Amino acid sequence: MNKSIVIHYVSRVLWMGAALFLIPAAVSLYYGEYDSALTFVITALCVAIVSTPAAVIKPKNKQMFAREGLVIVAFMWVIYPILGALPFWISGEIPHFVDAVFESISGFTTTGSTILTDIESLSRGMLFWRSFTHWVGGMGVLVLAIAILPSSNDALYLMRAECPGPQVGKIVPKGKNSAVYMYLIYTVLTAVLIILLFAGGMPLFDSVCHAMGAAGTGGYSIKNQGIAYYDSAYIDGVLTVGMMAFGVNFSLYYFILARRFKEVWKNTELKAYLGILAVATLLISANIFPIYKSVGKCFRYAVFQVSSIMTSTGYSTADYNNWPAFSQTAIITLMYIGACGGSTGGGFKVSRVIVLFKSAVKSIKKTLHPKSVSIVTSDEKTLDTETVHGVHTYLIIYILLIFGSLLIISLNGADFATNFSAVTTCINNIGPGISKVGPVDNFSFFSDLSKITLSVDMLLGRLECLPIVILFSPSIWRKNF
Amino acid sequence: MNKSIVIHYVSRVLWMGAALFLIPAAVSLYYGEYDSALTFVITALCVAIVSTPAAVIKPKNKQMFAREGLVIVAFMWVIYPILGALPFWISGEIPHFVDAVFESISGFTTTGSTILTDIESLSRGMLFWRSFTHWVGGMGVLVLAIAILPSSNDALYLMRAECPGPQVGKIVPKGKNSAVYMYLIYTVLTAVLIILLFAGGMPLFDSVCHAMGAAGTGGYSIKNQGIAYYDSAYIDGVLTVGMMAFGVNFSLYYFILARRFKEVWKNTELKAYLGILAVATLLISANIFPIYKSVGKCFRYAVFQVSSIMTSTGYSTADYNNWPAFSQTAIITLMYIGACGGSTGGGFKVSRVIVLFKSAVKSIKKTLHPKSVSIVTSDEKTLDTETVHGVHTYLIIYILLIFGSLLIISLNGADFATNFSAVTTCINNIGPGISKVGPVDNFSFFSDLSKITLSVDMLLGRLECLPIVILFSPSIWRKNF
Repeated sequence: MNKSIVIHYVSRVLWMGAALFLIPAAVSLYYGEYDSALTFVITALCVAIVSTPAAVIKPKNKQMFAREGLVIVAFMWVIYPILGALPFWISGEIPHFVDAVFESISGFTTTGSTILTDIESLSRGMLFWRSFTHWVGGMGVLVLAIAILPSSNDALYLMRAECPGPQVGKIVPKGKNSAVYMYLIYTVLTAVLIILLFAGGMPLFDSVCHAMGAAGTGGYSIKNQGIAYYDSAYIDGVLTVGMMAFGVNFSLYYFILARRFKEVWKNTELKAYLGILAVATLLISANIFPIYKSVGKCFRYAVFQVSSIMTSTGYSTADYNNWPAFSQTAIITLMYIGACGGSTGGGFKVSRVIVLFKSAVKSIKKTLHPKSVSIVTSDEKTLDTETVHGVHTYLIIYILLIFGSLLIISLNGADFATNFSAVTTCINNIGPGISKVGPVDNFSFFSDLSKITLSVDMLLGRLECLPIVILFSPSIWRKNF
Repeated sequence: MNKSIVIHYVSRVLWMGAALFLIPAAVSLYYGEYDSALTFVITALCVAIVSTPAAVIKPKNKQMFAREGLVIVAFMWVIYPILGALPFWISGEIPHFVDAVFESISGFTTTGSTILTDIESLSRGMLFWRSFTHWVGGMGVLVLAIAILPSSNDALYLMRAECPGPQVGKIVPKGKNSAVYMYLIYTVLTAVLIILLFAGGMPLFDSVCHAMGAAGTGGYSIKNQGIAYYDSAYIDGVLTVGMMAFGVNFSLYYFILARRFKEVWKNTELKAYLGILAVATLLISANIFPIYKSVGKCFRYAVFQVSSIMTSTGYSTADYNNWPAFSQTAIITLMYIGACGGSTGGGFKVSRVIVLFKSAVKSIKKTLHPKSVSIVTSDEKTLDTETVHGVHTYLIIYILLIFGSLLIISLNGADFATNFSAVTTCINNIGPGISKVGPVDNFSFFSDLSKITLSVDMLLGRLECLPIVILFSPSIWRKNF
């Protein structure tokens, strides 16, 4: 393990992170919230002072491999969200430190679960900061660093470790260029969404916050009622399409720009993603018909909620806690499927579900026809055993994590549906669950132990386990490693 | 596919199955229940008449491979439980046909979930039949056929297909001899349990029924209150040890008889099984202390429930629906782990959990040290990639099945905990769940669609998916296959 490069990189990215605090500071200043502004500036200064020495001194040994990349990403994702909690805590707007950390991790991991009982009581600066963490966390803090900092030639391993989804057919060459492209596409799409929301009558501040929340597939709203507050079919429609767009593999936008339409058209994951969205919308629309008694309304609420959950955003226009059991179960199922790999969305990812499905079919065929040779393919590329095995491993860790967390959370004494959906929504970076953590409820009643457990789940879900697991692996810290 | 051997074998086993109906007929006669006795005799005659022609005529082509074995097992397990439902239905004691089939499948698969609201209203003959299905289903109808019918030389593939658990280190040579040994050990252990229960003051009829229920790890009680009816620490203790004993891989008893103690001592699965039992008992004892306020009582209830659930029996001495959320979550977790492979118990099996765990650790190590060579071992034997992959495939099918069933069951409108635990308990062949399907509740309120879905889950869980999946695979029925 090359410790010096790890410390150097982490410090560099923190250094850039310090600058990010100045953006909400400017927002606070604009709205005349001088206390909030001061809080952000103080935090920025602290972070900058701590990180400058190691960021300036160049390490002797510049060698970086997969494990260094994983450890840097893990460190960044543990340290940065805790720093991001400081403004909430110092300002006293979220007085309990564990709550502030939960809120910040939920923001950066683009989960969107909140411990706030009255969101609207927060200052504008803090509301902006909450939504901004979604935007930064969605594409990744490190990817941003690679895109804007000079001389990031070792970016490959960092991007691999931070980008969600299995490494199925590495379509876009990873590295500095792709980080720049990714952030450009991301920024442009976010800007378009802001304009469309603003055009529909949503105030500019609200539009910016909600567009960032949709772009990162986070789901923090600045209203207690969520998107239902605006009660506008236009806004619902724009956000529905917006959320869907951010749940797609970003490589596909790159292909569109490169006029390689055939590759978009032939993309299996995209087809499956849209197919699942359509089927789920139809089924839920039918299931909620007895409540709304209008085809239009049913479709509007169903398609919004399906997109919101499947992309792991977590916005809501209706309290689906009052929907029938089937709709709630369908929503839980969508939480596990998640968005496309290489998007800002969470969950297990459609591509992984496809790999699981295909590898199972292959195994069954093999039992039936022992002499036949069959291979697992994705987009007409053969998936090597390593990829298939990697997806299997991820599934196993994921399941162990779910049961482990469920046991800890259940010490709180809440009902099974609450506990199960809380773990599900946090590990998949969605936001709301069902029962006591439904779309109009919050996570404030959980004990500190539960909040910490759920925070760890959010981090593990966002980073897809591996970096964090490796951080706590003893062998990596041995001297001669 | 050699269809003639499939039909021949299925008919032969059905023919033997007809004889099995005469045992409850004798019980009915003994208790003077002539209607019940007649029902069993009529059923036996019908089955015998239908199955005799194909059972007597020997097929020209006697070749049998893995797929024939799987298809025979699948057919048997679909046909026989439906025939087993006939006595319930014809006698009118369970007037609704779907209910009768559910009850019969739940019996043969050793699940123990019931649709009866008043168990004690059944005749003695029917109560005996319910428990007897557990005993026959636990070790397997086909294994019984192999043990008692002459010339079963192709038994290998049949036993492989019917015996639960992954084929990890085939310790006992499969075949006619091992089927005989298995049933001998099984019968002796059951007899010991009957004697011990009877010695504790349980009436003989009750002792026989409950011993058969424990032996098959089924869980049908003949009392509405379950084992709590007897309220005896002695009976609880005997059943606790009894259930634990039937959750152990039967090969270990063979080793003990063969004085190969070292292999018992070194068995990883046994150690893990006992370890999980001990840890779960301790945790639940501590968690329920505020309810019972006595260390002895807590331990007695906890150890009974942990053994009952982990071995997939499903007997209860306390309504754990009133226990804290942690205990309920721990119980759900134990349902998924299940008993040892090669036992009469259900669930995912301890050995599979070990394989999953080890293969995940191996994968992570591989990422950290790409150049190292690491292999997955069990009991110091190297597990081949095929076994590991087989366990992964099973996990995937299992998960797809759980979500699919959950969606169908949720159409009933019950709460999430009810639906989730109903699917969990049926697919793992346990018996009771939590919430509305708790240990003192029953499955009667479910719709026919849900009952059929849960019945299919029980069958798939008992046969570990593969045979049933293959039965519905189109390619196997092609002419030139």
